Amino acid sequence: MTDPRLDVLCIGNAIVDVIADATDEFLESQNLKKGSMNLIDAARAEELYGLMNPGREISGGSAGNTAAGIAALGGKAGFIGQVNDDQLGQIYKHDIEAAGVEFLVPPSGNVDPTARSLILVTPDAQRTMNTYLGAAQQLPADAIDSATIGDAAILYLEGYLWDPPGPRSAMEKAIGAAREAGRKVAFTLSDGFVIDRYRDDFNALIDAGKIDILFANEAEIKALTGKDDFDEAVDAVAPKVPVLVVTRSEKGAIAVEDGHRARMRAEKIEQLVDTTGAGDLFAAGFLAGTARGLDLEACLRLGAIAAAEVIQHYGARPEADLTALAKDVLA
Amino acid sequence: MTDPRLDVLCIGNAIVDVIADATDEFLESQNLKKGSMNLIDAARAEELYGLMNPGREISGGSAGNTAAGIAALGGKAGFIGQVNDDQLGQIYKHDIEAAGVEFLVPPSGNVDPTARSLILVTPDAQRTMNTYLGAAQQLPADAIDSATIGDAAILYLEGYLWDPPGPRSAMEKAIGAAREAGRKVAFTLSDGFVIDRYRDDFNALIDAGKIDILFANEAEIKALTGKDDFDEAVDAVAPKVPVLVVTRSEKGAIAVEDGHRARMRAEKIEQLVDTTGAGDLFAAGFLAGTARGLDLEACLRLGAIAAAEVIQHYGARPEADLTALAKDVLA
Repeated sequence: MTDPRLDVLCIGNAIVDVIADATDEFLESQNLKKGSMNLIDAARAEELYGLMNPGREISGGSAGNTAAGIAALGGKAGFIGQVNDDQLGQIYKHDIEAAGVEFLVPPSGNVDPTARSLILVTPDAQRTMNTYLGAAQQLPADAIDSATIGDAAILYLEGYLWDPPGPRSAMEKAIGAAREAGRKVAFTLSDGFVIDRYRDDFNALIDAGKIDILFANEAEIKALTGKDDFDEAVDAVAPKVPVLVVTRSEKGAIAVEDGHRARMRAEKIEQLVDTTGAGDLFAAGFLAGTARGLDLEACLRLGAIAAAEVIQHYGARPEADLTALAKDVLA
Repeated sequence: MTDPRLDVLCIGNAIVDVIADATDEFLESQNLKKGSMNLIDAARAEELYGLMNPGREISGGSAGNTAAGIAALGGKAGFIGQVNDDQLGQIYKHDIEAAGVEFLVPPSGNVDPTARSLILVTPDAQRTMNTYLGAAQQLPADAIDSATIGDAAILYLEGYLWDPPGPRSAMEKAIGAAREAGRKVAFTLSDGFVIDRYRDDFNALIDAGKIDILFANEAEIKALTGKDDFDEAVDAVAPKVPVLVVTRSEKGAIAVEDGHRARMRAEKIEQLVDTTGAGDLFAAGFLAGTARGLDLEACLRLGAIAAAEVIQHYGARPEADLTALAKDVLA
């Protein structure tokens, strides 16, 4: 097996975030559950946008954010996701390439408009996402090239992408190609509502031994297992995956590998602004560490550092120099 | 003369800002003078964008920023500027309307793409702007309706808009309509390079008594007069306009009205992030105060408060609650 060209190849929804402040009352008036990710159609997107405060457009999408974070930590990352060749698609392409990530799917003029997520940030810095998937859900399975997949040490997939059937097929194809090439497969459960819709699929992937590194947050690991107790939920899943990583917001994170459980505190922050991307960047740090062969604690620390940076500003991709912030760990 | 419906009607280039961090070395490599505003064509915009760091898209444009600031201070503001009916144009329209500003020109499918300014922010928080004017320079003179102009207490114009001939005609028409209706005309000199191109035009407007409130910064008032000494430059212009306002960055600002010279310190700030919009928001505060009938010192103070807010984050429009920040002045 030759050395892979990429450290991590990420597949996900290619989304431009439209980020605006909102009050709790606004969420209530729109019947939105704080912290949730809701899929919306074009008509609802237009309606909700019309009611929102002025926005900032910043490229996002869960796995795309993770790819940008890996690159910011000095890793070699690629990204597979579909955008239209419209202005938002051009912005998406520019931003991910300028972040140092190989963007492996050309924008297309023959798909729906580029995806956008209307992200409402409440004064408590929580984000509530309303995503029009557009072009992102039209990622075709034939965008997955086995040689490209085999050329990355780790394949990373977002659970969000399980919703649209085309990308789901693409991900299944990619998982097969990665396993065939002897590469690792990492997967994030993404969101409680996604788990509610696809719990059986996700458990089947895990039970079949197709996932080498599983990412979840506390709510997600509970949702997956149906267990209300955090430790019970972790104990139920950990034996089924080589590496399990569970983030717990300000309570830090844990990782379990071969029965060894590592814990890491959350990094101290000065100002919590917008939690969008916290999990994505935690995964970026952990995967960047894994690709460098660091131990579990160091991988968790990189995750904590990257997550802490991204929640201190609007937007879900790193703005500060992550290699400088993490220089003690990377040394 | 009936009471006007709007406090301030702003005419300017409708631009979406694309804001990215950049190093001093990058500016040098691109032959860009720090702090300048450069007009670029579509090909250069594509080239420079391809070399830039990942960006944030936030609606901007000088007079549009001022309109948003006036609305944020509780004033009634309108905006005239041209966008295409493309995604960036939809973003522009949403943002200015969501800021509480009446957007008086419909987006058009028959003009160039919506204007964007590639704004490079160096570590010292200075901004260097590279603007593709696109649709903005296609604002037609017939977008100016005399009744609408007459329905605003103050007409506010940006010097930047003098560059494209169509909007220049529109502004000249608007000045005529405002004076005919007995309204005030405010004008910002905008930029040293603009003054170099149109010094004679600007001086002719001033000498003809067509400007009631003139905004400039220190470099601009010197460029307009050709005088290197600040006080000499102010003394040369002040007698020619009813109100002269000159901003001096961290040195504060002065205003001169009927021989009375008022001074105001700059507000204390915690963190200088991005100076884009400082002058626009100073004008917003001053004009919002003027519309409320406040005295010169209070108008300067509102300008200083609004400018201080906008330079502490990326983007040239207010994010914090300006009426709360300025509650002592507005009380």
